[in-house]
Amino acid sequence: MLNETRLASLRELMAQRGIDAVVVVPSANLFYLTGVQMHLSERVTLLLVTRSDAHLLVPALEVPRVQARARVPLKLHAWNDAEWVQAGWLALKKNIALDGQQIAVDYYSVRALELAQLQAAAPGATFSDASPLFETLRMRKDAAEVDAMRRAARVLETSMDALLPEVRVGKTERELAARWQWLMFEHGADGIPDAPIVASGPNTALPHTTATERELAKGDLLILDGWCAVDGYFGDITRTFAIGSVTDELKHICDLALRANQAGRAAVKPGAQCQAVDRAARQVIADAGFGEYFTHRTGHGLGLEVHEAPNIVEGDKRILAPGNTFTIEPGIYLAGKGGVRIEDDIVVTQDGGESMMVSARELRVL
Amino acid sequence: MLNETRLASLRELMAQRGIDAVVVVPSANLFYLTGVQMHLSERVTLLLVTRSDAHLLVPALEVPRVQARARVPLKLHAWNDAEWVQAGWLALKKNIALDGQQIAVDYYSVRALELAQLQAAAPGATFSDASPLFETLRMRKDAAEVDAMRRAARVLETSMDALLPEVRVGKTERELAARWQWLMFEHGADGIPDAPIVASGPNTALPHTTATERELAKGDLLILDGWCAVDGYFGDITRTFAIGSVTDELKHICDLALRANQAGRAAVKPGAQCQAVDRAARQVIADAGFGEYFTHRTGHGLGLEVHEAPNIVEGDKRILAPGNTFTIEPGIYLAGKGGVRIEDDIVVTQDGGESMMVSARELRVL
Repeated sequence: MLNETRLASLRELMAQRGIDAVVVVPSANLFYLTGVQMHLSERVTLLLVTRSDAHLLVPALEVPRVQARARVPLKLHAWNDAEWVQAGWLALKKNIALDGQQIAVDYYSVRALELAQLQAAAPGATFSDASPLFETLRMRKDAAEVDAMRRAARVLETSMDALLPEVRVGKTERELAARWQWLMFEHGADGIPDAPIVASGPNTALPHTTATERELAKGDLLILDGWCAVDGYFGDITRTFAIGSVTDELKHICDLALRANQAGRAAVKPGAQCQAVDRAARQVIADAGFGEYFTHRTGHGLGLEVHEAPNIVEGDKRILAPGNTFTIEPGIYLAGKGGVRIEDDIVVTQDGGESMMVSARELRVL
Repeated sequence: MLNETRLASLRELMAQRGIDAVVVVPSANLFYLTGVQMHLSERVTLLLVTRSDAHLLVPALEVPRVQARARVPLKLHAWNDAEWVQAGWLALKKNIALDGQQIAVDYYSVRALELAQLQAAAPGATFSDASPLFETLRMRKDAAEVDAMRRAARVLETSMDALLPEVRVGKTERELAARWQWLMFEHGADGIPDAPIVASGPNTALPHTTATERELAKGDLLILDGWCAVDGYFGDITRTFAIGSVTDELKHICDLALRANQAGRAAVKPGAQCQAVDRAARQVIADAGFGEYFTHRTGHGLGLEVHEAPNIVEGDKRILAPGNTFTIEPGIYLAGKGGVRIEDDIVVTQDGGESMMVSARELRVL
């Protein structure tokens, strides 16, 4: 969708909800609206969308980049390192009447740094969370967005295939993480992808660990969990492997996670609630007595961010519709022994759900 | 310094300034105080330090990692994906009297997401910015911290040396960025380092560009700007190269940037203001008539973050003291033609300043 169209859709939602201005800082939402990709830093950058204009408070040194990348007209208010951002705030205040307005700020990226300034600039304004507006806009992907995500899934799977012959006893998690990252790069990921999660042995029981200097050993489970973007859109995959022979208990939880992944995928269809997918996957694990070891949601939305709306979790009652994209990634974690997670990227179709992944989900022995 | 000592120093500052509680979210400040390294995400994690306790609101799935890594006693308030964070907020409110208190929150990492909840939980509290407390604590590095930074500088220089023989006409910026990143990893950087800035030809005129698919060509300037951490502490280096012969104008700005870098380094001493270092470097470039093309501050503090306090810029009147660490990185950017930047990492000593870099700063032809 053209950025102009996105901005128009945002303004429609603003009108419906009585919002006068929307504020975002460097984030996926800034990129979604304007095409400008920047890092959030100590140099304040802030987009303020009113019903008629889009103002950008921006450090002077970023102006050339903004002018090169912006795909919508922006009114620039540049500030330089010598004056720091105060001058920019003053310019913004002079140009835009904020006091008494309904201002929605992106709660997930706007910091106290910016919010305190906005509150001081407009003491009579009412502040609310803009993230629901962006969730509404971004949850329904168009064909081009889904196509980019499928290509990201291909990069993840082909790079993982290329990595597997190099996995052996004695390699460290960190070596494998760096190597997989390099392979994602070679297989066509955007920019330089993030380092993936590589966990082995007891570390697999920590769902959010980072790669350590631990060397792979016989009898380990090995979790490979990587994500990367293509044309700005993310794929995210997890597969679990065995290094040689593993205990029956570990084999059992791998089998359970596989069946939970299948049950989750089978529950996807337009009209279903997000929580129904979580329930379907969780039931398999709970029925087998391992419910307490499945310590996270079944999945998360996926798109311009690795984690975005919706949540595949109890309590998320949003109704699935074609073009929604999210992960299904049940896991079981036995402290000190090992863990498993099997993650697919799903797109909701006209009559069900389709995984973007083609690689085997069964426990493979390396 | 032990984390316990850091927490005690923070509480001393809190007492001096009448602050009852300090709030941080996953960030360098969380790591500095507790030893826990986490990413800021949609799952709210929040450390609340009172005069007597340290409370951590934390997603249940992160509890094992926190328990493994925390180097100070933390009172954990865990919340799980099914209930989401509301339950955690309630537990925190029940345990800690916040209303009417003076609460300092880290303005640079606490988001509207957390601040709005804190404001709702304690409508009578007064909120202020905690970042000056952390700047005071973190600006003065001890010997172990400076040693880690020196080792990070070595990783950057040895990996850059290893990269240079591979630089040639036809290579893309992105290939060189990925390759240098890999070499930093091989030379001993923490984890997987960030992708460096590699800019060539006209792209060198954009100070904050990211590596593109542009191929190096004869007559280009080439800017290599990389950073990485060792034991948590960052080094940051920039050197500028010529691909074959470049114009006299480009040679001239490279010479100016070199002399500005030298002048900045010579101005470093205990007792000098930060802005004096900026003035010394800037003067060289302004005197030659290129002042308007030096569009950023002369440098930034360096340590647990790539950018931290102090600022080497007009207006930063903080007084340099032994153990302060920062960059000196004057640059000149001529739109459409090319740019130069030469960056050293500096530590203030008892009687002056010392660069951690040993590699040549002069324009080298590749």
